[in-house]
Amino acid sequence: MFAEEDLTRDAFLGGRVQAWQPRHGYRAATDPVFLAAACDARPGQSVLELGCGAGVAGLCLAARVPGLRILGVERQAAYADLARRNGVDVVEADLTDLPDDLRRQSFDHVIANPPYYRAGHGTAADDPGREAALREDTPLDRWIAVAGRRLAPKGWLTMIQMTERLPDTLSALSGGFGSVTVLPLMPRQGRPAGRILLKARKAGRGPFTLLAPLCLHDGARHDRDGDSHGEIARAILRDGMPVVWGTPPKTRSI
Amino acid sequence: MFAEEDLTRDAFLGGRVQAWQPRHGYRAATDPVFLAAACDARPGQSVLELGCGAGVAGLCLAARVPGLRILGVERQAAYADLARRNGVDVVEADLTDLPDDLRRQSFDHVIANPPYYRAGHGTAADDPGREAALREDTPLDRWIAVAGRRLAPKGWLTMIQMTERLPDTLSALSGGFGSVTVLPLMPRQGRPAGRILLKARKAGRGPFTLLAPLCLHDGARHDRDGDSHGEIARAILRDGMPVVWGTPPKTRSI
Repeated sequence: MFAEEDLTRDAFLGGRVQAWQPRHGYRAATDPVFLAAACDARPGQSVLELGCGAGVAGLCLAARVPGLRILGVERQAAYADLARRNGVDVVEADLTDLPDDLRRQSFDHVIANPPYYRAGHGTAADDPGREAALREDTPLDRWIAVAGRRLAPKGWLTMIQMTERLPDTLSALSGGFGSVTVLPLMPRQGRPAGRILLKARKAGRGPFTLLAPLCLHDGARHDRDGDSHGEIARAILRDGMPVVWGTPPKTRSI
Repeated sequence: MFAEEDLTRDAFLGGRVQAWQPRHGYRAATDPVFLAAACDARPGQSVLELGCGAGVAGLCLAARVPGLRILGVERQAAYADLARRNGVDVVEADLTDLPDDLRRQSFDHVIANPPYYRAGHGTAADDPGREAALREDTPLDRWIAVAGRRLAPKGWLTMIQMTERLPDTLSALSGGFGSVTVLPLMPRQGRPAGRILLKARKAGRGPFTLLAPLCLHDGARHDRDGDSHGEIARAILRDGMPVVWGTPPKTRSI
């Protein structure tokens, strides 16, 4: 468990969501907020978050969509404890070894912000909690397979991932998902996408779609203090607006 | 062979390239021009085009980069004949059964505009030549495997594909390619990408990169006659400018 002095209380969605987080370790910034904004859950539906950490994504989703049943799975006891303290219903478990009770349940939505780095890639984080959140121990295809098993028929998986992992993600999704839609998050106009938001439907039959990117920051570089987020990013991060997943192309032509 | 009256002579790159094409059947429009613009070949290098059709991509590439050795492979005799008439060096062969002589050669670059549709998907084209160009008989992963075998070490494969096929393409590339970079071609601002340009390096070790899309047309819809191409698309299609593959992200942050 984290000691009291090792926690901070942080605001998300312009203060509508407050959450305790470790002062050091894995601290949610914008990723779980985008993840929550990207989940199309409707009131009354059920949502499972794999690897929920301190629970920020679930809290942001609950703040936007009323009447959801949200359950988190977190294998790090200290983070599961924190998520509970933040008001999120949490099962402390490794996602590859879910308790029987949870394995009998299915959900309308699964959301996940899996570790970005492959085992053995990149520089290790000093903090073990942060390290566990950033570098995968359980491979990405296991995350996606578990999501598939816990989803109701035609349920949706929504993820945020580093763009570098898109090929691995699509490969894992080919096993039982379709109707995959990718929304690139482009840091600034004209720059390569750093992150992607992705949704995929269990046994979906729709085509793969690559949406126009969402540009996060105005201007060509970070050249002033304060919030440089563009209008749409600000509406998502501060005002709790959902991601607009766009419409399919009107014609086949390019 | 096509009868003389079944041919048209068409201009590409603002008239710098002239090519005979069948009046009916598979007619090159912008795809081979973008493909040629996307290939980073340097003067003196060798380029193999798989499924060259009437040879428009090779002609456009030769018009931009001097001193290339360009060879096309085409299995439809009438198109191979047309490509020769257009001045392209062509081997008439199925790419899955290349002649021994060609199998002993390696190339600095392979380019391809493979059929967009899977066998059994979509509506059949009336014309058999057009049908063969649009719907795959040889699966996409075979195209990519053959490209890999014909590439010199660290050689580059450059492709244009329908966005729907990106998952299949990435899956096939995972077998021996890396440093995959995708440039989405977005028909208009904010619309999903209809096509992708993609380059991948044989045995490359660089990360997957998703560039900001290239927007092809100005305006929200087609609302005037004539060329509505945006500035960059026009520079590529009319003035023979190469595609700018962009720079890797300066930071890891989104």
